[in-house]
Amino acid sequence: MDRVAIIGTGLIGGSIGLALKGGKVTGLEVIGFDDDRSSLNEAKKRGAVDRTAGNLREAVSGARLVIVAAPPLAVRQVFEDIGPHLSEGAIVTDTASTKALPARWAGEYLPAGVSYVGGHPMAGKEQQGIKNAEAGLFQGKTWAVVPSARANEAAVQSVIGLITIAGAEALFVDADEHDQYVAAISHLPLMMSAALFSLVRQSPSWDDIAPLAASGFKDMTRLASGDPRMAHDIMATNVDAVGHWIDRFIVELQRLRDLMQENRKSLFRQFSETQLQRDAFVAGDWKKRQPLAEAPSAKDAMSSMLLGGLLSSRVEKFEKDMERGSRGRRGVLDDDED
Amino acid sequence: MDRVAIIGTGLIGGSIGLALKGGKVTGLEVIGFDDDRSSLNEAKKRGAVDRTAGNLREAVSGARLVIVAAPPLAVRQVFEDIGPHLSEGAIVTDTASTKALPARWAGEYLPAGVSYVGGHPMAGKEQQGIKNAEAGLFQGKTWAVVPSARANEAAVQSVIGLITIAGAEALFVDADEHDQYVAAISHLPLMMSAALFSLVRQSPSWDDIAPLAASGFKDMTRLASGDPRMAHDIMATNVDAVGHWIDRFIVELQRLRDLMQENRKSLFRQFSETQLQRDAFVAGDWKKRQPLAEAPSAKDAMSSMLLGGLLSSRVEKFEKDMERGSRGRRGVLDDDED
Repeated sequence: MDRVAIIGTGLIGGSIGLALKGGKVTGLEVIGFDDDRSSLNEAKKRGAVDRTAGNLREAVSGARLVIVAAPPLAVRQVFEDIGPHLSEGAIVTDTASTKALPARWAGEYLPAGVSYVGGHPMAGKEQQGIKNAEAGLFQGKTWAVVPSARANEAAVQSVIGLITIAGAEALFVDADEHDQYVAAISHLPLMMSAALFSLVRQSPSWDDIAPLAASGFKDMTRLASGDPRMAHDIMATNVDAVGHWIDRFIVELQRLRDLMQENRKSLFRQFSETQLQRDAFVAGDWKKRQPLAEAPSAKDAMSSMLLGGLLSSRVEKFEKDMERGSRGRRGVLDDDED
Repeated sequence: MDRVAIIGTGLIGGSIGLALKGGKVTGLEVIGFDDDRSSLNEAKKRGAVDRTAGNLREAVSGARLVIVAAPPLAVRQVFEDIGPHLSEGAIVTDTASTKALPARWAGEYLPAGVSYVGGHPMAGKEQQGIKNAEAGLFQGKTWAVVPSARANEAAVQSVIGLITIAGAEALFVDADEHDQYVAAISHLPLMMSAALFSLVRQSPSWDDIAPLAASGFKDMTRLASGDPRMAHDIMATNVDAVGHWIDRFIVELQRLRDLMQENRKSLFRQFSETQLQRDAFVAGDWKKRQPLAEAPSAKDAMSSMLLGGLLSSRVEKFEKDMERGSRGRRGVLDDDED
């Protein structure tokens, strides 16, 4: 029997358990542990784990693979607590949203004979807890993998095996780069979302504003409904990178505000370019580019040319529309300035 | 036969047409006009209009209700062009995302015998055009109604009838207040969305960042895929309110950044409070409050007390967790600072 321990049976840990059990891997025993006994019992009831452990020591004892699915700051405590009880040759992975500090904690608290391979599944939802866990949560998603220098090749392959069973795609990345990247695409958006909701909610006009709030506002504030402990831990373990991206974002937002106030033709061009680029992103253009050599291929150049041509023709049409408008009694573009 | 003219048969105009025709109102003839002939022909083919007009004059001639579903800046030109051809007693409404300027243009360009009742359906999606139109687009949504001083009661009732047929709920609001409110919940989010995508997309590391981008980033940048002409016109007709909310948002984001850097216990409290308030918003708490008297009712006070109690108990548990963590070899909270 291969024993796998899941420490933390919330949304992520529970979903990993369900994926493992659903994968029908023969000879696999999944042991679960969670501080929250009701979450742990629910994990057992839902079949995410075969057996529950009464404490961390019991959970990791004899386990070949230990998956720590806890909020970032809790990972340190778990590593410290399980360190003395891990089997020689055990593999430890985690799912924390930041990777530099967990890697450092692994170096400090896990014994030399243990392979640490950091992980971060790029999946989740704002509904937390084991009751929202699902085997398919990671299907088709990216799962960042950050092996420690000490991890052996077999350990890395085991974690990739886990990721494959969960239906996700492994992506190797350096810990510091990972934290910079997710600061941009995940932690900054979380701060924006919380700031937007909090700002509008505190308005004295909130009761009049709320009935007008449509799907745009709901989408843009969805991340603010996530687990506050998780949000706190993410920020606490990625202060510099998040601060850096917040500052850059403010500069960009001010640039758009200035265009709105002073140069609306450029604002239109900006919106047009962003729309074309985002549509290309959603269509998965970066997937096509990944396996290519670093120099832009002929196909890339062609694609850039076509997008550039499309952008130019849109700007041209826009200018004609605006000109036609300004033949009226007043200029359309400065109509709001009086 | 009652004749209704729809000027602009894109997503919104087309969806209104489909809702009207699907509503099986007897004796109703819907005439469509659009600068874009292919959009107009598609509207006819899809049954959103009974008949297409060759020009604006033909479209509005004999119409009792004229619905102008054009981008905000185009509304002015349309009002100017149709003004001389409207029937005595005709009702004109529009669907522009801002309401103060269309109201002013109505005063300037529509004849005295015509009732203008501004409108703004709080519905939409980033996929534009008649091909994405659907009869159910407005179902259950709010539709802001801004009658002009000149509009008679029958005209207001006709527009409410249209809104009811479309399945939406009419909400009366003052034009300037409307523009302030939607700046907060719609136009600021649009600017944030465009700024976020543009910022991250221009990063030299974009090719490495993109594979990590999950649903959070996609949701937070969705509005950036909207029609750039529409986005431009919205900003051009709401410069002051949007600028005001952008500036306030930046202050709020900086406040969260400062908490992250200097006072993470307060950051946790902030995340917790925002989560509780947003969950209450999504659950529709404001709906329950609407019909109540302005002074907080006993039920409101109870609800506030319960939420406050929940928040306190969460902060308490968080502090205990953090203390337990800091009993380790180093303080959890300043672990990222060395």
